[in-house]
Amino acid sequence: MSYKYHMPTKVISGQDCILSNSELFKRFGKKAMLVTGRASAKKNGSQDDVIQALQEQGIEYVVFDQVMANPTIACTYQGAEFAKQHDVDFVIAIGGGSPMDAAKVMALLARQDIKEENLFSGPHGDDVLPIIAVPTTAGTGSEVTPYAILTNDVIESKTSLGPESLFPQIAFLDARYMLEMSVETTVNTAIDAFSHAAEGMMTVRASLVSNALAKESIAIFTRCIPALREAVAKDDISVLDLHVRNDLLQCSMLAGIVIAQTGTAAVHAMGYTLTYFKDIDHGRANGLLIAEYMKLVEEEKPQLIEDILAALNIADLTELDALMCELLGEKEVISEDEMVKYIANAARINASKNNSQVTPSDDDVGAMFRKIFGL
Amino acid sequence: MSYKYHMPTKVISGQDCILSNSELFKRFGKKAMLVTGRASAKKNGSQDDVIQALQEQGIEYVVFDQVMANPTIACTYQGAEFAKQHDVDFVIAIGGGSPMDAAKVMALLARQDIKEENLFSGPHGDDVLPIIAVPTTAGTGSEVTPYAILTNDVIESKTSLGPESLFPQIAFLDARYMLEMSVETTVNTAIDAFSHAAEGMMTVRASLVSNALAKESIAIFTRCIPALREAVAKDDISVLDLHVRNDLLQCSMLAGIVIAQTGTAAVHAMGYTLTYFKDIDHGRANGLLIAEYMKLVEEEKPQLIEDILAALNIADLTELDALMCELLGEKEVISEDEMVKYIANAARINASKNNSQVTPSDDDVGAMFRKIFGL
Repeated sequence: MSYKYHMPTKVISGQDCILSNSELFKRFGKKAMLVTGRASAKKNGSQDDVIQALQEQGIEYVVFDQVMANPTIACTYQGAEFAKQHDVDFVIAIGGGSPMDAAKVMALLARQDIKEENLFSGPHGDDVLPIIAVPTTAGTGSEVTPYAILTNDVIESKTSLGPESLFPQIAFLDARYMLEMSVETTVNTAIDAFSHAAEGMMTVRASLVSNALAKESIAIFTRCIPALREAVAKDDISVLDLHVRNDLLQCSMLAGIVIAQTGTAAVHAMGYTLTYFKDIDHGRANGLLIAEYMKLVEEEKPQLIEDILAALNIADLTELDALMCELLGEKEVISEDEMVKYIANAARINASKNNSQVTPSDDDVGAMFRKIFGL
Repeated sequence: MSYKYHMPTKVISGQDCILSNSELFKRFGKKAMLVTGRASAKKNGSQDDVIQALQEQGIEYVVFDQVMANPTIACTYQGAEFAKQHDVDFVIAIGGGSPMDAAKVMALLARQDIKEENLFSGPHGDDVLPIIAVPTTAGTGSEVTPYAILTNDVIESKTSLGPESLFPQIAFLDARYMLEMSVETTVNTAIDAFSHAAEGMMTVRASLVSNALAKESIAIFTRCIPALREAVAKDDISVLDLHVRNDLLQCSMLAGIVIAQTGTAAVHAMGYTLTYFKDIDHGRANGLLIAEYMKLVEEEKPQLIEDILAALNIADLTELDALMCELLGEKEVISEDEMVKYIANAARINASKNNSQVTPSDDDVGAMFRKIFGL
């Protein structure tokens, strides 16, 4: 019965929402740092909209566009140095999870001297540059969470930090930026969002508020399934119109609010291993794992799985498994040597596992991995 | 498709949540002002818990316990003066909507000199004393909104203000404080909460996020209906146990998040008139009006009413009307002279009416009032 709910980010959603709310940038200062990857923010129009809004308000800006996929710790220190050199007042993150997460850490490190060995453990003070988030994919939900997830070579996986101060001040949601996204990225990110909502419900921190939002998020995902299937079948994005794109963006944002409260569960813990060692896309990794994990949960908590399936409007986990296989296509080939390494790695990453209502044992982790990849 | 969502208040819910989170008070300063009504916060244990938490943290406090039901503007200026005299750092509002709303305005006026004639129009700066809210009724939702609703003799009704700065920093939800609440107050406040959720769905600002929370709030209200009916039938609170009390509190808080986004609709606008002139309890006034207003909405927006009824798990508006009559008992007797005055008053209060997807005409307002009171 006890829970906490906190999501201070102001969400502003709708077509052209950045330009029609440009006055909101003003309160954050006179100079902004845009944080993006190398290309997509320039192509999809988001960076232009942000720059136009800043110019309208007479706000100076500098651009740090060096964030790679699965950003490294080093990248965030570089970005923070850049922010300090240019004496910026706030950060505008534009892109998918990678630029948003990296930008959060830059906003932290620009204001606080934290050594790399203390970056994940903290303590993190409250002083950070204000963060504004403009998601251009619909999966991570990072625009409404305090989390930053970075590649961590020390533990050979990904590690997250999430002090409250890293909640963005504003998240601008405009689905137009996603119109040209590939089928593959659309599917992977949509499944990531679904996984956030479903995992949120399977965590020990699930509450009535987070579950209400998770079920709505899953219901929106369900509404998008026919379009996703058709896009995959035809390998054509034309069915993914602005309406579907907006649904996926809302699904992802709601699921982000969920995990901001609950954290993720064992699926993410296991998935990070696949991303780290095999470079499997993050959302795809979750999609490969989720039905199998839900089967394990179903043994102990059948009602919980029934609630998720009801929100999905799917009969059983076999059907969910089939859907994921259809959307994700052929699975990667994993050798026995690789498998041994993955199992050992995933089994020792306990944080998200322990956040799960049903904690898989090391043997469970091994059995799930083997079953999924047919080994 | 465009909407904004913002609810920065941190919700902390659960038995003994104040004492088990007493360290949270510390960040707000060294001296608190408790704002309450004359009696209930002392009786229900909430004031004792707050004081114990403050003492544990070495925080001084003063008590302003002069807030009346339907608080006046004068009361808020007195409280602000008290806060300034005692140089308090933050405000802790304990009680129902009246103390919480009054405390918000005191927090504002303690930091900003605003003349009475500008109190509702603003501009309101961002500088306010931090507000912590401890609801001891389950209806207003004020703990998660920026709204303060005061009795306004100039317009002979209630008027609200709601700058973003008046969102409480923290809302502590502990259903224990409601265990001794009378059947009548429980019913009136529960209906107020239901009305917030349903009205939120009927406003022009309803969004996917607010609707998700509204439907969850209504579903929880529905879960409580059997207990409410039994309590009314037996005039006995014993069926309203901690579980039901907590449900009602969650229902109310979720509905509060809804109206923080959407505002209220025509039901509230009309209800304020009944409260101002006839001293009909606020929640009761909404309950008397809501089914009739929903009939009007149904003519133009049948799907909207169907969605609300689905969340309620009620077949049609006749059934809702019957439920409200059962819960609220005999209606007040209104004379023809009174009726003429009410209609004129409610018809000229346009703010909430214009926020409604279906705006009642002055004739509609008159017809609804007459039908409800059999005139």
